[in-house]
Amino acid sequence: MLLNRLLSNFVSSSRFSSSSAPRLLQIGDVLKRSRIFSHLDILEYSKLSHDSNPLHLDSEFARNAGFEDRIVHGMLVASLFPLIIASHFPGAVYVSQSLHFKLPVYNGDEIASEIQALNLRENKKRFIAKFSTRCYKNGELLVLDGEAMAILPTLAMEQGKSME
Amino acid sequence: MLLNRLLSNFVSSSRFSSSSAPRLLQIGDVLKRSRIFSHLDILEYSKLSHDSNPLHLDSEFARNAGFEDRIVHGMLVASLFPLIIASHFPGAVYVSQSLHFKLPVYNGDEIASEIQALNLRENKKRFIAKFSTRCYKNGELLVLDGEAMAILPTLAMEQGKSME
Repeated sequence: MLLNRLLSNFVSSSRFSSSSAPRLLQIGDVLKRSRIFSHLDILEYSKLSHDSNPLHLDSEFARNAGFEDRIVHGMLVASLFPLIIASHFPGAVYVSQSLHFKLPVYNGDEIASEIQALNLRENKKRFIAKFSTRCYKNGELLVLDGEAMAILPTLAMEQGKSME
Repeated sequence: MLLNRLLSNFVSSSRFSSSSAPRLLQIGDVLKRSRIFSHLDILEYSKLSHDSNPLHLDSEFARNAGFEDRIVHGMLVASLFPLIIASHFPGAVYVSQSLHFKLPVYNGDEIASEIQALNLRENKKRFIAKFSTRCYKNGELLVLDGEAMAILPTLAMEQGKSME
């Protein structure tokens, strides 16, 4: 598992650096993004989503429920997947996403998010892509697992800069 | 389908109004929440999630891609599901969610979100609940479909007020 991930990274990175021509997404490619969610992010997401679950807002409540502290909303962590897709493929349209929340994410955890292309098929000059979607914390701890499908306007990848 | 929904609503509503004792969640119960997403919500979500897909931010880009206008982020629409769960069951822990994005959501659309209890099982004094999760717009148009699982601290439902 670890070897596969390292190998995928290597393949992906080496492809990126070997050419200045637009890179075309290929099956097996891995695209990544890391983020540390702050408590301010949690507060802003609570306000925007109207989700005031005390697990996200009340440390004592969260500890009494068996957590170390307040947890980041699962859907906020999951936002990393469409972010990765859209940053490489502006105009991508989300078709589906499955999410399995495996471990809690706390503010300050470094979350390494990655998607891997599992399947690509052309349809009416667009591309239907299936990705595995995973988030890890502290290196190898899987916190969120699933799959996504998206319609990509092209397989040519942008460098993945997004608004931050 | 429509009959089932109306019947479920009726059962759910009549149970709520028939007693002042805490209501216990039962299989078949439907819980609802409506929301209209504004363009400001889209902008704030783009900033918070770092997702600057032009489909959400650029009307001309969105129209050229075949949409009527800029679309609401799918994950922002999907935030209605954990909102409904948490507002009735504070302390609920999200286990999984599947999401199938069927139709675009535009700012100003009234989105009717509903979850229905499909399965309930007790485990170590908590309850593992499986819900169908759906969002409709303009009455009967299904825009988002899926299922969720959550661990509930109790089956006793709160009235579902949340921070707004």
